[in-house]
Amino acid sequence: MKRIKVAQFGLGPIGVEALRLSAQRPWLEIVGAVDHDPAKAGRPLTEITGLGALDGLKVARDLEALFRETPPEVILHTASSSAAATLAQMRPALEFGVSVASTCEQLIFPALKEPALAKEYDALCRHTGARVVATGVNPGFVMDVLPIALTGVSREVESIRVERVVDAATRRRPLQAKIGSGQEAEEFSDGLRSGRAGHAGLIESAALVAHAMGWALDSLVEEGEPVLAEREIVSPFFTVPPGRVCGIRQRAVGASGGRERVVLEIAMFLGAPQPHDRIVVHGRPPLDVTVTGGVAGDDATVAALINVVPRLLAAPPGLRLATDLALPKWTGDS
Amino acid sequence: MKRIKVAQFGLGPIGVEALRLSAQRPWLEIVGAVDHDPAKAGRPLTEITGLGALDGLKVARDLEALFRETPPEVILHTASSSAAATLAQMRPALEFGVSVASTCEQLIFPALKEPALAKEYDALCRHTGARVVATGVNPGFVMDVLPIALTGVSREVESIRVERVVDAATRRRPLQAKIGSGQEAEEFSDGLRSGRAGHAGLIESAALVAHAMGWALDSLVEEGEPVLAEREIVSPFFTVPPGRVCGIRQRAVGASGGRERVVLEIAMFLGAPQPHDRIVVHGRPPLDVTVTGGVAGDDATVAALINVVPRLLAAPPGLRLATDLALPKWTGDS
Repeated sequence: MKRIKVAQFGLGPIGVEALRLSAQRPWLEIVGAVDHDPAKAGRPLTEITGLGALDGLKVARDLEALFRETPPEVILHTASSSAAATLAQMRPALEFGVSVASTCEQLIFPALKEPALAKEYDALCRHTGARVVATGVNPGFVMDVLPIALTGVSREVESIRVERVVDAATRRRPLQAKIGSGQEAEEFSDGLRSGRAGHAGLIESAALVAHAMGWALDSLVEEGEPVLAEREIVSPFFTVPPGRVCGIRQRAVGASGGRERVVLEIAMFLGAPQPHDRIVVHGRPPLDVTVTGGVAGDDATVAALINVVPRLLAAPPGLRLATDLALPKWTGDS
Repeated sequence: MKRIKVAQFGLGPIGVEALRLSAQRPWLEIVGAVDHDPAKAGRPLTEITGLGALDGLKVARDLEALFRETPPEVILHTASSSAAATLAQMRPALEFGVSVASTCEQLIFPALKEPALAKEYDALCRHTGARVVATGVNPGFVMDVLPIALTGVSREVESIRVERVVDAATRRRPLQAKIGSGQEAEEFSDGLRSGRAGHAGLIESAALVAHAMGWALDSLVEEGEPVLAEREIVSPFFTVPPGRVCGIRQRAVGASGGRERVVLEIAMFLGAPQPHDRIVVHGRPPLDVTVTGGVAGDDATVAALINVVPRLLAAPPGLRLATDLALPKWTGDS
């Protein structure tokens, strides 16, 4: 079996987990990793991942240094939520014809906030033979790819509504921090307005759904507000007194002709009851789909990143949307 | 906009409905239809479909007659459940390089029952540039494509279980007949054993799921049994006295290493309570998905057939599986 050579870019918790899952896949060969952090560059990958099989590999400071060793065929990128930052970070790889699978939230639909960059990088990729796609669980699956796939059996689609409720107390520390746990409402609302806080990629999910349905939207807006603790909440990482922020409600709405076409609502807070994902396709036939308990975030994101690799390499070169690739599927041993 | 030229093969209820839906799609152009039935051949399509827009088109007796007029780019085939019969019917089109989207149940995974034919026709298609795919709601979506797509966010998959409960009283007459409504248990069981009765394609769905997961099955078996009316049941088409057949329970199980990997269970009977589809992926993360009310059969099958056309033409030539094509989606106006 010819294995696909991959390298990891970004060694935060998701990046390290992506390496651990890659190491379990017989069809993948890990050839290196990159992190700009001077505290990580130069360190052995065995030390950072706990994987003895990566003996001999060290963290490279940049892609150029990585490419001087074994060049990968695919880079797993987990280092930014910004499409502009991600594309700039990946430029040396793309110029080299190396493909990129990323968890970058804005890259789920890069034309929304970076239309000029999206065109430029798409042209670059077509020229060099590289492919780029973003994936994940949200954005990348429950609020965009899955609802779109459901409409494969639709004669007519009037609108699509998705709600996702996440009990943040069951999630890792960075997520609990991102949703404002323990902050003052005022301070967190400022962060939300400036885009420093909140869930990235919701508006991109809405744009991807509208694009797939062929809807030219007149408006696409996003809004968010803190959820305040009614009584003291204790999570493994935060103790939130009553009145402080324990999470967020966020909503993206795309409309055309005065009609709401895509409505995505996410509630993520410590202790949120009955976590679930629900997708309703108003149309013919009507579709009402519930994921009981919801799709778990981090496990699913890392899985989506690894599972997309063969489909990415099978796609034509370019800056790709998840909806351009073949049907998602698990890629266990083959 | 360059429209895709399609012709319909088979003018049963599903075929006629496929023409009606095609006529609503601005990106499709209907160029003809074929039916071997001498009672239909030669008749105007306006008369059979009620669509004035098809004025001037008549039902051709065979594909050769159709091709003497405007050759289509894609044939919508709804005339058989048998892979062998479908491929034989479509041979003149495939030799001509014309692609085929079919509702043929066995064609969901043709290598299961017709491995030699599947190879032969795949080679033929690659030679002429034609593409073939089968689609539908079941088989083709709820018990195969959708569960497979869900595993796109799976790190590990141990097994996949799907149950589908259909209240047959809400469905059209041919389905109520197919599930044995009103028959004696003995007579229907004979039909089930010989393959004349029951739901076609269940075992193909199981084979497709196993194939997509990379599971080499040690066994793949299918069994079915009648459901008997406990009291008189009256549907729009049948009156079933107590003790007679009112539907069917059918099950396909694929196992490897003594472990059930794919378990598909369908219950279709008159008055079945709480119709739904439920997909459970045992793995990491666990996934438990319910389609409340279930995906409606006929509407969804016709929709799947039309929606697959652009994705079929974008795929490389060959005898394709639904899992080879791009993500399913609605194709309303674009």
